[in-house]
Amino acid sequence: MKIAIAGAGAMGSRFAVMLTQGGNEDLTLIDGWPEHVAAIKKNGLQADLGEDDKGVGKGVGLQVPVWLQSEVPSGEQFDLVIVFTKAMQLGQMLHDIQGVLGPQTKVLCLLNGLGHIETLEKYVAKEQIFLGNTMWTASLIGPGKVKMFGTGSVELQNVAPGQEDAARDLAEFLSKSGLNASYSADILASIYRKACVNGTMNCLTALLECNIGQFGQMAPAHAIVTQVVSEFVAVGRAEGLDLNESELVAHVESCYDSAVADHYPSMYQDLILHKRKTEIDFINGAIARKGRKYEIPTPYCDLLTAMIHAKEELLGAK
Amino acid sequence: MKIAIAGAGAMGSRFAVMLTQGGNEDLTLIDGWPEHVAAIKKNGLQADLGEDDKGVGKGVGLQVPVWLQSEVPSGEQFDLVIVFTKAMQLGQMLHDIQGVLGPQTKVLCLLNGLGHIETLEKYVAKEQIFLGNTMWTASLIGPGKVKMFGTGSVELQNVAPGQEDAARDLAEFLSKSGLNASYSADILASIYRKACVNGTMNCLTALLECNIGQFGQMAPAHAIVTQVVSEFVAVGRAEGLDLNESELVAHVESCYDSAVADHYPSMYQDLILHKRKTEIDFINGAIARKGRKYEIPTPYCDLLTAMIHAKEELLGAK
Repeated sequence: MKIAIAGAGAMGSRFAVMLTQGGNEDLTLIDGWPEHVAAIKKNGLQADLGEDDKGVGKGVGLQVPVWLQSEVPSGEQFDLVIVFTKAMQLGQMLHDIQGVLGPQTKVLCLLNGLGHIETLEKYVAKEQIFLGNTMWTASLIGPGKVKMFGTGSVELQNVAPGQEDAARDLAEFLSKSGLNASYSADILASIYRKACVNGTMNCLTALLECNIGQFGQMAPAHAIVTQVVSEFVAVGRAEGLDLNESELVAHVESCYDSAVADHYPSMYQDLILHKRKTEIDFINGAIARKGRKYEIPTPYCDLLTAMIHAKEELLGAK
Repeated sequence: MKIAIAGAGAMGSRFAVMLTQGGNEDLTLIDGWPEHVAAIKKNGLQADLGEDDKGVGKGVGLQVPVWLQSEVPSGEQFDLVIVFTKAMQLGQMLHDIQGVLGPQTKVLCLLNGLGHIETLEKYVAKEQIFLGNTMWTASLIGPGKVKMFGTGSVELQNVAPGQEDAARDLAEFLSKSGLNASYSADILASIYRKACVNGTMNCLTALLECNIGQFGQMAPAHAIVTQVVSEFVAVGRAEGLDLNESELVAHVESCYDSAVADHYPSMYQDLILHKRKTEIDFINGAIARKGRKYEIPTPYCDLLTAMIHAKEELLGAK
């Protein structure tokens, strides 16, 4: 199978390493960061696999074709493209790789956030789109260098009716490389469940400049979380999802005492530490947009989105 | 006339100086800050009046009776008590000075924010309450020391029907000491107008940590201001006020290019600079409370109030 990873950041790189080690040799990376692409061309993709049982560091250098996103040639068509960009980069990536998307290409979207199907449908037929959610983690530690740790899983589902078998085949294919993938009968509900965590912890820790545990200790935390989750639930239900509001609130609040309590979410890291633009338009902003479409008020998501954008401007985020 | 200033911070001290210089010699200060009270007892109230035309500094030391709020004797009753505490200190002040409030005492409330009448009515009859709004400014530069600059004015009105003449007399009385006071036929509308500025600029600059001009330059500023003001207007209308929403939005936005563009509002100063609790419950929080009473949704005020309280906790504000 001819595979492309479109967006070879931390997660895309991890998937590339695992798929290659799983025996898939016809794999190409596509990315928009010139230094990263240049480093991979020169030295291969360097993966730090942590330490073995004896404490010996393990690594692998993967010689793999890599294209700069703006220089993707047309003509060749991939069987499978796994898109793994930041949410706000999806549209540009799809635009840039149009030449390698054929009518038979399956596109598996594993991005964080909501509202990606609408973007994907501008470039490929619904039948070609598969939506997923992953619990794998990784860090990019520099151009061409990825650090892989822990284990994870993937859930995925077809977007178009009648493609369930194709989705199951895709999950089975990924699992052959150890990616622990399974078919989900309700992927959107899983994605909303994850989005409820991101839609509260991400923006609120970035605005208040605190970690998850600190936020959870504040007296107003429960009222804010409840209100934000209620907007996600109202919009999700308008999209036909069966969501349990109190279970979702409890799911969000379970973070406060968990292993991630000391964690500063990705939006905090992007905005506060690295002065980068955030994914807010694909989390709370997506709920706000969908709310307008369904005529459901989403004032908390509206205000949180506006305040994150204001803080992006104030900090000169790029 | 026997006058007390209940809350002798910057503004209370300024009024005390002006009233004394205007010939009112029976004036007592009441305050809750022990060091301030001790300094006034020892050295009098030291007022820095700025420089005269020739650049010579002018000052005055006012020998004036001063009581610590918790040690107010009972028995004596004042003709006029001007309350000038921080909004959240009003209830405690009225509780502490009950002994000097008689049935003939007029109480003039010049505090920032909304919702003070309800508190005042617990201690005196509606007929005794006068509500005002002032544009005078002053700074407390240390215990017993106030800096007075610029000019200002006072608007005031009776709260109970039939007390209009008393309100006009009170304005005339204050003006005799140069306080430039006038009767207002619509003081609540003036207070709401000022509260719209405080209810946007105060909390938003404190949350985003910026000044007024910086906030005004942000792309989401107009949408946020419009939404917050619309909640103030909806609640104000439920209270019988005639408020013009677009005029109020323009009034708020006129700050961006004004002399206060470089200004960090009092809530920013309280919370970010001095780690003090804020007046949020008497600005956006008051709209949220009144909104619940009138069954008017006020989600922006709810969330902004909650986030300011969260930030107070995070910063350990006292």
